[in-house]
Amino acid sequence: MSDGFGLDNLPYGVVATPGGAPRPAVRFGDDAVPLSGFEADAGLPSGTLAGPVLNPLLALGRPAWAALRAAVRGRIEAGTAELVPLAGLEQRLPIAVGDYVDFYSSIEHATNLGRMFRPDAEPLLPNWRHLPVGYHGRASSVVVSGTPIRRPRGQLPPPEPGQAPGFGPTTRLDIELELGFVTGPGNALGTPISTRRAADHVFGFVLVNDWSARDIQRWEYVPLGPFLGKSFATSISPWIVPLEALEPFRVPARAQDPDPHEYLRTEGDWALDIALEVELNGEVVSRTNAKDLYWTFPQQLAHATINGTNVRPGDLYASGTISGDGAATQGSLIELYEGRRFLEDGDTVVLRGRCDDRVTLGEVAGTILPA
Amino acid sequence: MSDGFGLDNLPYGVVATPGGAPRPAVRFGDDAVPLSGFEADAGLPSGTLAGPVLNPLLALGRPAWAALRAAVRGRIEAGTAELVPLAGLEQRLPIAVGDYVDFYSSIEHATNLGRMFRPDAEPLLPNWRHLPVGYHGRASSVVVSGTPIRRPRGQLPPPEPGQAPGFGPTTRLDIELELGFVTGPGNALGTPISTRRAADHVFGFVLVNDWSARDIQRWEYVPLGPFLGKSFATSISPWIVPLEALEPFRVPARAQDPDPHEYLRTEGDWALDIALEVELNGEVVSRTNAKDLYWTFPQQLAHATINGTNVRPGDLYASGTISGDGAATQGSLIELYEGRRFLEDGDTVVLRGRCDDRVTLGEVAGTILPA
Repeated sequence: MSDGFGLDNLPYGVVATPGGAPRPAVRFGDDAVPLSGFEADAGLPSGTLAGPVLNPLLALGRPAWAALRAAVRGRIEAGTAELVPLAGLEQRLPIAVGDYVDFYSSIEHATNLGRMFRPDAEPLLPNWRHLPVGYHGRASSVVVSGTPIRRPRGQLPPPEPGQAPGFGPTTRLDIELELGFVTGPGNALGTPISTRRAADHVFGFVLVNDWSARDIQRWEYVPLGPFLGKSFATSISPWIVPLEALEPFRVPARAQDPDPHEYLRTEGDWALDIALEVELNGEVVSRTNAKDLYWTFPQQLAHATINGTNVRPGDLYASGTISGDGAATQGSLIELYEGRRFLEDGDTVVLRGRCDDRVTLGEVAGTILPA
Repeated sequence: MSDGFGLDNLPYGVVATPGGAPRPAVRFGDDAVPLSGFEADAGLPSGTLAGPVLNPLLALGRPAWAALRAAVRGRIEAGTAELVPLAGLEQRLPIAVGDYVDFYSSIEHATNLGRMFRPDAEPLLPNWRHLPVGYHGRASSVVVSGTPIRRPRGQLPPPEPGQAPGFGPTTRLDIELELGFVTGPGNALGTPISTRRAADHVFGFVLVNDWSARDIQRWEYVPLGPFLGKSFATSISPWIVPLEALEPFRVPARAQDPDPHEYLRTEGDWALDIALEVELNGEVVSRTNAKDLYWTFPQQLAHATINGTNVRPGDLYASGTISGDGAATQGSLIELYEGRRFLEDGDTVVLRGRCDDRVTLGEVAGTILPA
């Protein structure tokens, strides 16, 4: 359990004793280090770490994050940090989510889904290689790992074209294995964030399971995109791994062809080497890696703001389903099983992400409840 | 100016002296009635009306809203209410927007756009008459009337299929005339809101201008829907007219064919007779009415939650562009001028909504700044 949660990681979350008030904390091994005593150490404004969410910390920006990280690490190394066993604590949602954006940045996933949904056409639509396609998801139903997922009901596609739609619990309940970033200070309306400045606005990363009802989605999604097929729940891992902890795992991104427009160009290595896996009822059914995403996170943030929209502390930007190109490397069941296997009531899905034995993203888990 | 803001209206907003703290208020004529002194009168928890937004009031639900409305009306009638001239105050965004959902509920608008975007097919897609099509918009860039609108830049459609996209300021900047509702207490995740209970969750209504960059939107929107073509700004009118003030203007909705599924059926009259107009640089260019919307607000809220997603106080649900079926009744420029006229820098758009000489929604205004 504690593997990858040593001094090189120190991710941020919010914990509570059962029935107690939510408290920001850092994870160290199998313990939580409550942060309330660190405001003075790190020179942060009073109240920054009072909870119930991390947003006030996110608003302060990278110098404050670095100061806090150094202070926490210092006290742990000195043996003076309070350590509370995680076994007695509940995980809470660590952020108040402002806007939740979901991208579609894996070329293998977009190709696989294009083949399924538009079998007679080019699988990738003409815009896909020119911009990181994305849309807004629902912020209210972002939940922390461990929250049970109620099977949604809704309108289902008509049995034959022209007939009335069905209605009932989804029979094609799926997962989407994604990596998400949580934003820091943000920008004023009208001032885009360049790829060069993107990292200053990224606090850290979580695993995301973007639960999806494929039948509801297929019927509703034209022409304005997914709505109820996605909005019933999105789960995130409880510990936000700071970008600083992921620095050693930045690797070159795959080549992009054609070259993207200037506002999407980057210098340096912005793919993240994070091994990912999907576990279904105790069996690992897929393994892939975040480094194979076509679009990188600085590109995603630069694109999302090129029209001047404002990012706020606590926004969540997810990568879209991460699929590889071999057998058992897909990030959704519809790809893994070609539509023959979806989630049953009682199924448990655990997504995991791990850089090496020093740094892990931990896991995001959820179990399906009947409709 | 004060027409329609008498005792029968009493809408809610947030005002501030220049540079001052935002304060919840009710509008009466050309004055604001600050609400901070009304907590005890109306039996509301301390802090409910302290600002900076109305969300704590929204969370309390209909009995609290009715008590406050009666208390404000009572003091105005008794001549003991504090009246502050609006001329010396700034309007602020009255709510912290949770999720922003945009529907597509005018059959004339959906038909007009379907004809333009898919000239060789049925203008209405197969799902349209079965459910209120909608999607999530961006919450961070919802702004109050009067906020200038910066012309967005972005990727523009390739001149010819297969060529590279362009980039630059949008040349097809448009408006969308919409009516929006702001939600009250909300529901727990997993428990849909029925059409029968919808009104208990609707605090009141605002006018919405869902600014749209048609060229950016056309290139980006497949397959996941509008994103940057809409996310740069959405303007709302400053005064939220409570549903209670709109009760006299509830009228029968137009017939729906086919009958919608049971969860979308309603009893009673749920269309709202609100005359709407679009003014462009001082000239009224379109007049329509909200009562002609195909889908009603209880249907929209029941649909949005049928999968169990949770509504929060301060969510904004907009109708989609409201267009009529005659000349000069369309709610967007692309429909009014068939693509030959979009917004120029310096253009000012004012949308107005009015029930009768007692109750008005006021206006939402915005002026275009250069990119």
